[in-house]
Amino acid sequence: MKTILLLGAGRTAHYLIEYLDNAAKQNQWHLRVGDYSEALLAEIPASPQLSTTRFDVNNAAQCLDEIAKAEVVISLLPAQFHIKVGKTCLELGKHFLSASYVSDDFKELSTQIADKGLLFLKETGLDPGLDHMSAMRMLDSIRKEGGKIKRFQSYTGGLMSPDHTENPWEYKFTWNPTFVVTAGRDGGIYLRNGNIKRIPYHRLFKEIDVLDMPGHGTFDAYYNRNSLKYVQEYRLDEVDTIIRYTLRRKDFCKAWAPLVALGLTDNIFEFNFDKNISHRDFLNLFIRTGEGTLEERVSKAINHPVDSDVFKKLQWLGLFSDDIIDLKKGTSAAFLQKIIMPRWEMLPEEKDMIYMAHVCYYELNGKLMKRKCYLAVEGENQSETAMAKTVGLPLAIAAKNILTGDIKLTGLQIPTVPELYHPILDELESLGVVFEEVEEAVADQ
Amino acid sequence: MKTILLLGAGRTAHYLIEYLDNAAKQNQWHLRVGDYSEALLAEIPASPQLSTTRFDVNNAAQCLDEIAKAEVVISLLPAQFHIKVGKTCLELGKHFLSASYVSDDFKELSTQIADKGLLFLKETGLDPGLDHMSAMRMLDSIRKEGGKIKRFQSYTGGLMSPDHTENPWEYKFTWNPTFVVTAGRDGGIYLRNGNIKRIPYHRLFKEIDVLDMPGHGTFDAYYNRNSLKYVQEYRLDEVDTIIRYTLRRKDFCKAWAPLVALGLTDNIFEFNFDKNISHRDFLNLFIRTGEGTLEERVSKAINHPVDSDVFKKLQWLGLFSDDIIDLKKGTSAAFLQKIIMPRWEMLPEEKDMIYMAHVCYYELNGKLMKRKCYLAVEGENQSETAMAKTVGLPLAIAAKNILTGDIKLTGLQIPTVPELYHPILDELESLGVVFEEVEEAVADQ
Repeated sequence: MKTILLLGAGRTAHYLIEYLDNAAKQNQWHLRVGDYSEALLAEIPASPQLSTTRFDVNNAAQCLDEIAKAEVVISLLPAQFHIKVGKTCLELGKHFLSASYVSDDFKELSTQIADKGLLFLKETGLDPGLDHMSAMRMLDSIRKEGGKIKRFQSYTGGLMSPDHTENPWEYKFTWNPTFVVTAGRDGGIYLRNGNIKRIPYHRLFKEIDVLDMPGHGTFDAYYNRNSLKYVQEYRLDEVDTIIRYTLRRKDFCKAWAPLVALGLTDNIFEFNFDKNISHRDFLNLFIRTGEGTLEERVSKAINHPVDSDVFKKLQWLGLFSDDIIDLKKGTSAAFLQKIIMPRWEMLPEEKDMIYMAHVCYYELNGKLMKRKCYLAVEGENQSETAMAKTVGLPLAIAAKNILTGDIKLTGLQIPTVPELYHPILDELESLGVVFEEVEEAVADQ
Repeated sequence: MKTILLLGAGRTAHYLIEYLDNAAKQNQWHLRVGDYSEALLAEIPASPQLSTTRFDVNNAAQCLDEIAKAEVVISLLPAQFHIKVGKTCLELGKHFLSASYVSDDFKELSTQIADKGLLFLKETGLDPGLDHMSAMRMLDSIRKEGGKIKRFQSYTGGLMSPDHTENPWEYKFTWNPTFVVTAGRDGGIYLRNGNIKRIPYHRLFKEIDVLDMPGHGTFDAYYNRNSLKYVQEYRLDEVDTIIRYTLRRKDFCKAWAPLVALGLTDNIFEFNFDKNISHRDFLNLFIRTGEGTLEERVSKAINHPVDSDVFKKLQWLGLFSDDIIDLKKGTSAAFLQKIIMPRWEMLPEEKDMIYMAHVCYYELNGKLMKRKCYLAVEGENQSETAMAKTVGLPLAIAAKNILTGDIKLTGLQIPTVPELYHPILDELESLGVVFEEVEEAVADQ
C-alpha cells in the first residue's frame, strides 16, 4: 500500500487532508499525518485510510522512520525545517513537495535529486505556486500563438470576503499575523518601461498602484519584493515592464503608511520595559512631546485630520486605547501585533478571499494586445479558508498525480512547466478554483 | 622584560604606538605590534624597544604564542575578532584592552576574569571611551557636591577641521566609510521630560536637535542609538531626560535626509547588474519615471528646488554625473559609497576634528544649575588624526598604568569608575586633550 506522508497539520492543511484522504480511499493508499501538536491532530476527522502521529522534526529517528514508510512526503512545516526533511527524502529515495521558495540549500542538492530520479517539487502553493502556474499558462499560450510579450504585471492578495463584519480596513489576519505586520519590509524592485526602479520599505505603502478587477472593485497594489527575478523564471527577456504586487482593499495602504512612517512596524529594535504599558503609551513612544492631546499630535505627525478616514482607521485599531499590552519585551512590530490582534482576528463564521490577477501586453501581427486573467476564491469560514484551499490543493493534486504516475517529471522543480501546471490547473478548475480570461485589442499604448 | 602586544596597526594606531614606544623606552619594556598587512607594519618607525610581526588572528598557534609572551594585550582588530583574543588572554592569564563595546560573550567570561585577577578593560577609545570618562567625571563631581542630576545630554562627532578644503557638506570620511554611509540605521531611543521616545532610521536625519558650542559654532545633532542604557551605566536613575547624540556640521542632516528617504543608504537588498551603471543611472533607480530631467524629478521627489543648498550638496557629491561606478553587485549603500568616495576622501594635508560635549542640569540647594563641558581636538594631517589620538591614547595610557601598577582594578570593566577615568583624563590633558567646563545658574527651566 502506497503512503503519502503529510508533515504539518496547521491552518493550511484542511483541504489538503480532505483531498488526499479521498484520493487514498479511491486508490487504496494510506495518508499519514504528523504534527507536533496533538490538539491539531485531534481535529482531523477519523477515516479508515488515514492515521496520525505526534511528530517532532528534531527527532531524527522518528523522521527517518516515518519518511522510510512513505512514497511521497509533503511538508507544511515552518520553512526552516524543510531542508532537514528534504535531505532525509533524498537519502531514502522519496519524492518531496512543499509550498515554500527554492532556497540555496535545495539548489545544492539539485544534481543528486535528478540522479536518483526523484521529484522535489517546490513553490506549489498559492504564492508562490498558483501564481506561477496561472501566469505561465497564460504566457505560454500567448507565445504559442506567436505573440511577443511586452509587459507583465501580476497581483495576489489574501483578503476578506466583502460580506465580513464591519471593519473600515476591510482586512483581517488570514495568515501569519507576524508576517502581516511586517509585510513589505524588503521593499520592492521592478522594471517599468525599461527602467529598473527600487522602492524602500518606508515609501512602499505611499507609492502604490491600483488594480481594477471587473466585478470585484478597485484594489491597492503595492510592490512585492524582487520582480526582476521573474524575467528569468517566466522567460520574459523581451519585456520592458515586469511588476509583481500584493493586493489590499482600496485605501488600506494610505492608512497603513503612517504606521510604517512612525516606526510602529519595525522588527529590529527590542524594547524592554520594567512595567506593562497601554496601547496609548506605546503610540506615544513614536510621537514627539508637544502641545495638545496625543490625538492632536498624532494627527499633526501623520498629516491627516482627526476626522479623516485614515485617522479613524487608526482609532478603530485600538491604538489610542488605555488597554494594557500583555508584553514587556519585544520589537515595535510585536507590540503592534498585540494591539491589533483582537480587531483583526477572524470570527468563526467569517470568510476570507483570495484574489489573483495577471495583466499582459503583447504584440501579435503588428497589433498591441492585452490579456488579463483573474481569480477570486471565497472561503467558507474561519477554518475552511480560501487560503487553505489555494495553498493546499495544488500540493494535494501534485502528490496524487505523482503516485498515479501522471506526473513523471524528476529533479528539483517549480510548477512553471506545462507538464506540471496543466494537470494541476485543470483539476483545480473542477474544484472551483477558476481563472477568468479577458482578451482585448489596445488602441494605443 | 615586560611586553605589550598590540594587535592591529590600522588608521587609529599611530598615537597609540608612539606613546607606548616612548613608555617602553622609559620603562625597559617591549612593544610588539602584529598586523595582517605587511604594508602597515612597514610604516611603523623602527625603534630598539619595538618589534613587529605579520599576525593572523585565525592562526591559533601564532595567537597563543604571541599572547603568551605578553603581559598586556591591546586589540584594535575588527570587533568580531575580540572574543577570540580575549579568550586566549583569559586562558593564559593576560590583561586585555579594547575600544569596542562589551558584548554578551565577554559578559559571560566576567566571573572567570575576576577570579583570575585580570583586568579586561573595554570601551576605552573615543566613543565609547572618552565619552564615558568625561561624562562620569562631571557627573560624579556634581553628585559629590550634593547636586541631584535632572537632565543629561551628550554629543560626539568625528568631523573635519573648519580650515579643510572647500566642501559644502563640511564633512569627509575620517573613519570607516561603510559605517558612515549607513550611520544611524538603528534609529534612536531616548528619554525626554520623562517620556521615552523612539525614532526610526528613516526619520532620524529629519528630526534633529542642535548644539551650540562656544567658539566652535552650531552643530546638527541626531539621536545616537539607545540612550536609555546609560541610565544604568552612568547611574542616572533620577533624570527625566537622557539623550546621546552624534554631531554633524550645521545643515548636514537636511541634505543627508533625502538620501535616506530615497533609499540610497539601504544596506540589505543586493543589486546585481549585468553591466556597469553610471552615478546618474544609480540615482535614477530611486526616482519614479515621469516628465522632466532627472534633476527636475529628483528636486520634486525630495522637495528641494534645484537651486537650493540641499540640491547643490547632492550635485557636489557627484550623484548626477555620468561617471561609471566600478561595481556591479552590492547594496545601495555600497554603490553610494563608491560614488561619494572621491569627494569625501581626506587629502594628505587635511585635518580632522573631534568634538565632544556634555550638558547637565541639576538641582543644588533648591536651585537649578547647568554644567557643560566641551572638547575640541584637531588632527595634524591625514594620518596623524584627532580620531587616532582620541581613540588610541586612552588605551595607551591605560596599558601603561596597568604595567606600572597604577591601575590595580580587576575584572571586566569600562572606564566609568574614578580609579580609571581620573588618571587617564589627567594624562590626556597633559597631551592636549583638554575639556573646558562651564557652570551657570538657570533662571527657569
